[in-house]
Amino acid sequence: MSSTASGWRERFIALRSNKFFEMTVISIIILSAMMIGATTYDIDQTWMTLLKVLDISVTLFFLVEIIIRMAAEERIRNFFKNAWNVFDFLIVTVSLIPIDGNEMVLLARLLRIFRVLRLVSMIPELRILMNALTKAIPRIGYVVLLMFIIFYIFGAIGSSLFENINPVLWGDIAIAMLTLFRVSTFEDWTDVMYETMEVYPWSWAYYLVFIFLTAFVFLNMMIGVVLDVMNEEHEKVNRESGEGAAGEVHWIKEHTAKMEQRLERMEHMLKQLTEEQKNR
Amino acid sequence: MSSTASGWRERFIALRSNKFFEMTVISIIILSAMMIGATTYDIDQTWMTLLKVLDISVTLFFLVEIIIRMAAEERIRNFFKNAWNVFDFLIVTVSLIPIDGNEMVLLARLLRIFRVLRLVSMIPELRILMNALTKAIPRIGYVVLLMFIIFYIFGAIGSSLFENINPVLWGDIAIAMLTLFRVSTFEDWTDVMYETMEVYPWSWAYYLVFIFLTAFVFLNMMIGVVLDVMNEEHEKVNRESGEGAAGEVHWIKEHTAKMEQRLERMEHMLKQLTEEQKNR
Amino acid sequence: MSSTASGWRERFIALRSNKFFEMTVISIIILSAMMIGATTYDIDQTWMTLLKVLDISVTLFFLVEIIIRMAAEERIRNFFKNAWNVFDFLIVTVSLIPIDGNEMVLLARLLRIFRVLRLVSMIPELRILMNALTKAIPRIGYVVLLMFIIFYIFGAIGSSLFENINPVLWGDIAIAMLTLFRVSTFEDWTDVMYETMEVYPWSWAYYLVFIFLTAFVFLNMMIGVVLDVMNEEHEKVNRESGEGAAGEVHWIKEHTAKMEQRLERMEHMLKQLTEEQKNR
Amino acid sequence: MSSTASGWRERFIALRSNKFFEMTVISIIILSAMMIGATTYDIDQTWMTLLKVLDISVTLFFLVEIIIRMAAEERIRNFFKNAWNVFDFLIVTVSLIPIDGNEMVLLARLLRIFRVLRLVSMIPELRILMNALTKAIPRIGYVVLLMFIIFYIFGAIGSSLFENINPVLWGDIAIAMLTLFRVSTFEDWTDVMYETMEVYPWSWAYYLVFIFLTAFVFLNMMIGVVLDVMNEEHEKVNRESGEGAAGEVHWIKEHTAKMEQRLERMEHMLKQLTEEQKNR
Repeated sequence: MSSTASGWRERFIALRSNKFFEMTVISIIILSAMMIGATTYDIDQTWMTLLKVLDISVTLFFLVEIIIRMAAEERIRNFFKNAWNVFDFLIVTVSLIPIDGNEMVLLARLLRIFRVLRLVSMIPELRILMNALTKAIPRIGYVVLLMFIIFYIFGAIGSSLFENINPVLWGDIAIAMLTLFRVSTFEDWTDVMYETMEVYPWSWAYYLVFIFLTAFVFLNMMIGVVLDVMNEEHEKVNRESGEGAAGEVHWIKEHTAKMEQRLERMEHMLKQLTEEQKNR
Repeated sequence: MSSTASGWRERFIALRSNKFFEMTVISIIILSAMMIGATTYDIDQTWMTLLKVLDISVTLFFLVEIIIRMAAEERIRNFFKNAWNVFDFLIVTVSLIPIDGNEMVLLARLLRIFRVLRLVSMIPELRILMNALTKAIPRIGYVVLLMFIIFYIFGAIGSSLFENINPVLWGDIAIAMLTLFRVSTFEDWTDVMYETMEVYPWSWAYYLVFIFLTAFVFLNMMIGVVLDVMNEEHEKVNRESGEGAAGEVHWIKEHTAKMEQRLERMEHMLKQLTEEQKNR
Repeated sequence: MSSTASGWRERFIALRSNKFFEMTVISIIILSAMMIGATTYDIDQTWMTLLKVLDISVTLFFLVEIIIRMAAEERIRNFFKNAWNVFDFLIVTVSLIPIDGNEMVLLARLLRIFRVLRLVSMIPELRILMNALTKAIPRIGYVVLLMFIIFYIFGAIGSSLFENINPVLWGDIAIAMLTLFRVSTFEDWTDVMYETMEVYPWSWAYYLVFIFLTAFVFLNMMIGVVLDVMNEEHEKVNRESGEGAAGEVHWIKEHTAKMEQRLERMEHMLKQLTEEQKNR
Repeated sequence: MSSTASGWRERFIALRSNKFFEMTVISIIILSAMMIGATTYDIDQTWMTLLKVLDISVTLFFLVEIIIRMAAEERIRNFFKNAWNVFDFLIVTVSLIPIDGNEMVLLARLLRIFRVLRLVSMIPELRILMNALTKAIPRIGYVVLLMFIIFYIFGAIGSSLFENINPVLWGDIAIAMLTLFRVSTFEDWTDVMYETMEVYPWSWAYYLVFIFLTAFVFLNMMIGVVLDVMNEEHEKVNRESGEGAAGEVHWIKEHTAKMEQRLERMEHMLKQLTEEQKNR
């Protein structure tokens, strides 16, 4: 019985790493995405029924595919150790939940669109890109916190001062922060400014300081963080492969260490020679 | 008496570096920030009274906290040597000033919002970010000066030429510079241009030259300065920790120096050997 | 007969690499571009006839020029091995197709404008720039794919939710993606947002998440890719020319290798010396 | 007589390099700039007369200052060898031209504003910034040429296709290129697009391709060029000062070269030793 199970497992492993199987999964993900796109067009009932049938088939296919990949593991625990597998599992199970009622149909459709994200977990190059992004997240977190503090302070000031001028833009701190986000994207920000300048003629300073601070902090830090993460990745790859200047430096380091050891041996021999010479 | 004082001081030092105490201070800063945010909403009188009581408690807490931190120092001078302490002291003392009258209430509220900045001085990662920013400021100062000169020249030209076309945008040099800042953020700049092109059809050249100059100077210099500061920081950290290519280069330098000394000793020994050989 | 042909070929090779001939070709490309520019102005019939005559002359000149360059090759195959030659050949042949009828005149004019691109293949500095761009394309391809996935998901969500609010902006997934592209360029994006916020007050979150994702992914990756390609190019050039830090590192690597060999020889000699010393 | 002249020259040299004299010149440049700014405000006649008197004084002061700096040189030729001196000379002489008539007054005022640029030649840090910019110009020239070709091609296409839709935006190739510049700054570009999409529904592709091309080419190349120039400057400075990783690499290179020479000498000695050993 156990040997039969392991026989099946081997077949599943073979299937999982099969190039043709991978291409099929990718094609079905794209088909599934195109189906969701199609439902946003006004299409007649016949096609709609076809789409529903297709949707059920795709859901079943994804279910079978994930069961195969789980069965291919020796222990189901190992399957969940990989973050991409957990991601795939969630997307598949969520789309299995039976949803009824008109309101819920919309939600079901929205959940199904996230299947497109499975493309990221299937295409290796996209996985590498995502991993690089993930590494930048913790550092960027503090930049975002600093930006939030700046927005909060200017939001409180703006909402205190300009509330009576235009409550739609400055009604409370949350609305004021949304308005400031708009200002930071330069979206019709002068309209906002000219309105408050009628009451407080010096209020241009508020906007200029805010734009300078956010642009300065953002530019400085974003570029800095991206460059830092990139440099580290670049150097790591180069050092491992021995390519580029960083790779050559690593080579030199190792060979300098070897040379030092050799020189130590040589100095030792020379000392012995000179001492023997003296003793004679 | 003196021993009692130093006993107290030790307790204060222990309290100051206590993780729980730090977390309490951070929580109260966030609470204080949320209170200021809450006052921008329309809330009924009962809650308003509660907020006032809370505000007084927070002010007192900050006062006690800063006194503890001052008492923990051997000399009060040392406390003020740290720029972050001066920053905290200013924020706390300013919020102690009793403010009466309706007009002043607004000012008091605005001053209180700067308490949020104490988050920056409490969270080490934000302090590091701020220090990095501070290092870039002197270099960026000259870039800003150059930008100001460009704005001033174009402001004077624009205000001389276009004053009669639209005094709201080009009335005097200050207004013209604000309009130019708007143009540099691309905010409805074509509306400004088409208006002046009706009188001076060649005036598109004025805007194009201005946009090219500011974009060119700004992009070139901002990116350049950020990269420069980043690179220097990066290299310094790497060299100190011995990590990365810069760290390896530093390692190689030190070991090359050692190797040179060893080789000098060895050459000296060899010379002696050959001379003795000859003498025999 | 064959010697006559090779005599002609030599003359063609001489002509092809003649500086004056090159300048003539560049001048005629610019003349051809200016002619196409001139046809967009309202000009009287006499000038129009002149332009037509000029256009035929330019077409003939380009035909002769490309025949000379083809004849200068030993085999016509070699001519088509260079991508820039294929590019020139296509542009010249396409403009030879006789086009009649009013509708087609527009198409003919449009095809002729691509002759300006021949400037890129004629000026070496522009060719270098284009080659650098071409190297970045494969990496940027995956960034664009990731961006497309993000746009597709948000397009599907937006078109599902907001279709009834404004079908002009959110009618189907294609229109929704165009609207999202507009949002990502910050072009009147608040108008789009305020409209949907009237029905779904929380929809600001949809826009903010989208803007953060696209700005974050785009900035991170674009800058990263450009820097990576730049760095590699820079290092390669430096290592080959031996200039800059990368060039010096390469020099050190080679000389460290030589030093190691020399030290190996020296250690060997020293060993022999000590052994002989012992044997005596 | 000649000794008197050289005595005067020494006094002029001392004056030119005097810190107080430099500060006076800078102050007068700033005063002159502020005066031009003041004339853009509506001021009464008395102040206007004062400003005129001040303007003549400033013009005379600048004349005297430049004569002093010219007299401080041994030969007047040397004075004009420095590009900054030529720059100062032009600005001063131009403001000496007597201008009459109402129309010309405006021109005179505009020419006077360029005196502010003398700040750049007086403050060393700004001179360094300008020199860095100047180095990036030749490389950026070709990027601008490539951008111009893209604009020209799309301008010709746009003007051919959309001329009848809106002659104000697409009337001829020059107007079309200005409209495209507006599109590339994202300034109300969707208004331009929606207008042409009514006639040619597929014309969104024209705008998207154009935006991608310009953004892609611009971002890629601008960042690339800035980084390249920065890196080179950085490395050069570091190598000269021996600081940073590049400086250390240079140090290692020099010392590796010395070590190689020493090792050559040592190998030679060792060979002699072993040969003598054998001969015995």
